[in-house]
Amino acid sequence: MRTIDLNADMGELPGATGRASDREMLRYVTSANIACGFHAGDASTMRETAERCLELGVAIGAHPGLPDREGFGRRRLAVGAVEAADMVLYQTGALKALVEAAGGTLKHVKLHGALYHMATEDDALAMAVAQAIARFDGRLALFGLPDSAWSGAASACGLAFVTEGFADRAYLPDGRLMPRDREDAVHGNLDSVADQALALANGGRFGTICLHGDTPGAAEHARMVAETLRYAGIAVHSAG
Amino acid sequence: MRTIDLNADMGELPGATGRASDREMLRYVTSANIACGFHAGDASTMRETAERCLELGVAIGAHPGLPDREGFGRRRLAVGAVEAADMVLYQTGALKALVEAAGGTLKHVKLHGALYHMATEDDALAMAVAQAIARFDGRLALFGLPDSAWSGAASACGLAFVTEGFADRAYLPDGRLMPRDREDAVHGNLDSVADQALALANGGRFGTICLHGDTPGAAEHARMVAETLRYAGIAVHSAG
Amino acid sequence: MRTIDLNADMGELPGATGRASDREMLRYVTSANIACGFHAGDASTMRETAERCLELGVAIGAHPGLPDREGFGRRRLAVGAVEAADMVLYQTGALKALVEAAGGTLKHVKLHGALYHMATEDDALAMAVAQAIARFDGRLALFGLPDSAWSGAASACGLAFVTEGFADRAYLPDGRLMPRDREDAVHGNLDSVADQALALANGGRFGTICLHGDTPGAAEHARMVAETLRYAGIAVHSAG
Amino acid sequence: MRTIDLNADMGELPGATGRASDREMLRYVTSANIACGFHAGDASTMRETAERCLELGVAIGAHPGLPDREGFGRRRLAVGAVEAADMVLYQTGALKALVEAAGGTLKHVKLHGALYHMATEDDALAMAVAQAIARFDGRLALFGLPDSAWSGAASACGLAFVTEGFADRAYLPDGRLMPRDREDAVHGNLDSVADQALALANGGRFGTICLHGDTPGAAEHARMVAETLRYAGIAVHSAG
Repeated sequence: MRTIDLNADMGELPGATGRASDREMLRYVTSANIACGFHAGDASTMRETAERCLELGVAIGAHPGLPDREGFGRRRLAVGAVEAADMVLYQTGALKALVEAAGGTLKHVKLHGALYHMATEDDALAMAVAQAIARFDGRLALFGLPDSAWSGAASACGLAFVTEGFADRAYLPDGRLMPRDREDAVHGNLDSVADQALALANGGRFGTICLHGDTPGAAEHARMVAETLRYAGIAVHSAG
Repeated sequence: MRTIDLNADMGELPGATGRASDREMLRYVTSANIACGFHAGDASTMRETAERCLELGVAIGAHPGLPDREGFGRRRLAVGAVEAADMVLYQTGALKALVEAAGGTLKHVKLHGALYHMATEDDALAMAVAQAIARFDGRLALFGLPDSAWSGAASACGLAFVTEGFADRAYLPDGRLMPRDREDAVHGNLDSVADQALALANGGRFGTICLHGDTPGAAEHARMVAETLRYAGIAVHSAG
Repeated sequence: MRTIDLNADMGELPGATGRASDREMLRYVTSANIACGFHAGDASTMRETAERCLELGVAIGAHPGLPDREGFGRRRLAVGAVEAADMVLYQTGALKALVEAAGGTLKHVKLHGALYHMATEDDALAMAVAQAIARFDGRLALFGLPDSAWSGAASACGLAFVTEGFADRAYLPDGRLMPRDREDAVHGNLDSVADQALALANGGRFGTICLHGDTPGAAEHARMVAETLRYAGIAVHSAG
Repeated sequence: MRTIDLNADMGELPGATGRASDREMLRYVTSANIACGFHAGDASTMRETAERCLELGVAIGAHPGLPDREGFGRRRLAVGAVEAADMVLYQTGALKALVEAAGGTLKHVKLHGALYHMATEDDALAMAVAQAIARFDGRLALFGLPDSAWSGAASACGLAFVTEGFADRAYLPDGRLMPRDREDAVHGNLDSVADQALALANGGRFGTICLHGDTPGAAEHARMVAETLRYAGIAVHSAG
């Protein structure tokens, strides 16, 4: 029986509205990537989101980003490999403390925004970050793009790696994501998203599918993807 | 044989000048309280300071503060007990990750500035913070004022507590610190500081003596205190 | 003919969702209080919101807060009167530059959150902030509670003061707001809100009515309040 | 009679030590570039530094940087031209308000760190920032490298431009600065610095000479440069 993980980023939206939106998403995903305070999030939101994950049996991961709240961590910042590793450890350790005090276990790390892309492309940075994580806690899994600097670094450091696919993004024939500036790069249609999630799960190339939580109707998308997968006989559970 | 610990706050000054000053202080103290990024400090400075402590055999503790860089964590902020606990765990976990990846062990927690004072006075806040720390890592010792809400919370949570005295502050007959607005509240004279450190160590009431690192001549003060104590036959080593 | 101003806080919500929500509210209010980067907001959002106000003829004011993004500026911070004045000037000047470069004029200042309450109660702080504003730009109007330290400071400094009422908050017989912890402190019902806005406008005690923008249905509330007032023959235009 | 301006960055160092160091430098320079809160500095330090400048007759300029305190504004951040312009206006306006409330006039803008370099090289960014400044206050002078994107943008926008030389940096035969990674890029010797300042002043190519304030002995360097210039019959006064 095929299995797949569904992950979503959490704790990135402020206030009561953000928490309500996250709580809804958490009903359908099996892994949560919790923002760790640099690009978004704060200590209390991190703890509350972790507690909710523990209630629902959702696997908890860190979602560290660049220190750039104004730019939501999406703008590249010229940090060195060691600085990047320090920032990731700082944020991962911060969340781990809150998770462990709540009685849980931190399972994975998924980088955010520009840092995700930098680790995909930059071998030295990817290796420094992965080594730091491995020295800190070798049981943490890394989430990210297949065939990337980041996946290579995970292997080299002996960390489990979970390949991530995107249900709402178009892929090129060679397996890479279609660049966002292409007109048809993002699937807007709900059926297309669910169909692609199913194709990704059946293809066997991906261990987790990313569902975006910060768009209108995100929870409805998540619910439909989860139902489509289960209806097709695919087990949805956490990969970390 | 009497023993005493000498502690100082670290990683609070920016740039090369700050790091040079810290490196000098680390030659004389036995416990370092490393600023954790809220009132001062950043991930790379935290790691570098921790590495220097490990080289020198100085015990490493967290020095979490309020999220107020402009005010250096010295201005009270109306945070609830749970928020305070979340902030302390966040910062303590962040440092612990950097210390562990460097091959060390986090030993203690000393709160900073206004948060130190709030935990001294506010039973509910002190208890929430101590409980969070105990749930996270029950081997961490807490540093702080004797006979305070903070010391009581440590006992209630089963955490080791190290009572802290101040070599450069005048004490009232009842054992409390003289308020800072009193003219003779701070000893400026180097001999007085060393003499009081010796008296504190001999009195047996304190487990650690705080040396301030952010004043001119701080390392010279630290050196003289350490020498005075050793000359008097008091063993100086870490308490955490 | 009676006139009243309708004001709302702007630029406090992140991302595209926040901007869409603000754009909707701006169709119904006559004064916008733009968050200035300390409790929420950033330079680009400030400029974009100001440009939208200029398109729609909405008067632009500064909405400075305490430097506490995690707490959204709602937690009291022990700043002195001079520090508070410095912070308010910093934020007000920042917005004024963006407004003037866009061809507009900054009209008023409404403090945010805990700072609003501190200026209501603390004479020394209110006077320091008002004096700083008067020295910077004596044409700025201050928005705030009637019969407060803040209104008194405005008078003493020769600044125009616009008294602010709340359409969705219950009032006590003596004219003060019912404390938020009372069960019936906030009107949830849309008709009640519109009715109270009309009563406030007719009462003649208030120059501006605050509409909250960060609740679900905020724009719908704003639209109904504006229509109710206009239907009753009250002119809705900016007070600053 | 030849004239030259001496400028230094101010308000970048925290605490009492930083303020003392700045006060010493201000005795010798004629233009101060005050950090505006993004890479360093805060509202109260900005006001205090401005007041000290007004006492001593030192011209006040803004020293805006990237929002990166951890990296002291020295790491490139991928901001667009419009975002950069918004950030510069925000910071410049913030300082202008504090200066004007203190009875002074803001005279110039000198970008900081990575932003200085980005405006030197990137025509679109330089033009967006210069246009924003020109729309805000056309009397502000821009400080920067000659023959750069930044100097070109100043001309195109009708802003005065003051060319900046560096007394402690080696120059290449074509007039460009020797890259910092070259062994002999920085003059360590006090006499060399003073000699080069004199050569820069006599060469007539530069309107202002930058003296660095964050190195040990900075004030002593500044004093000697100022004396050397005055002894050689060169008038030292502000260029903005």
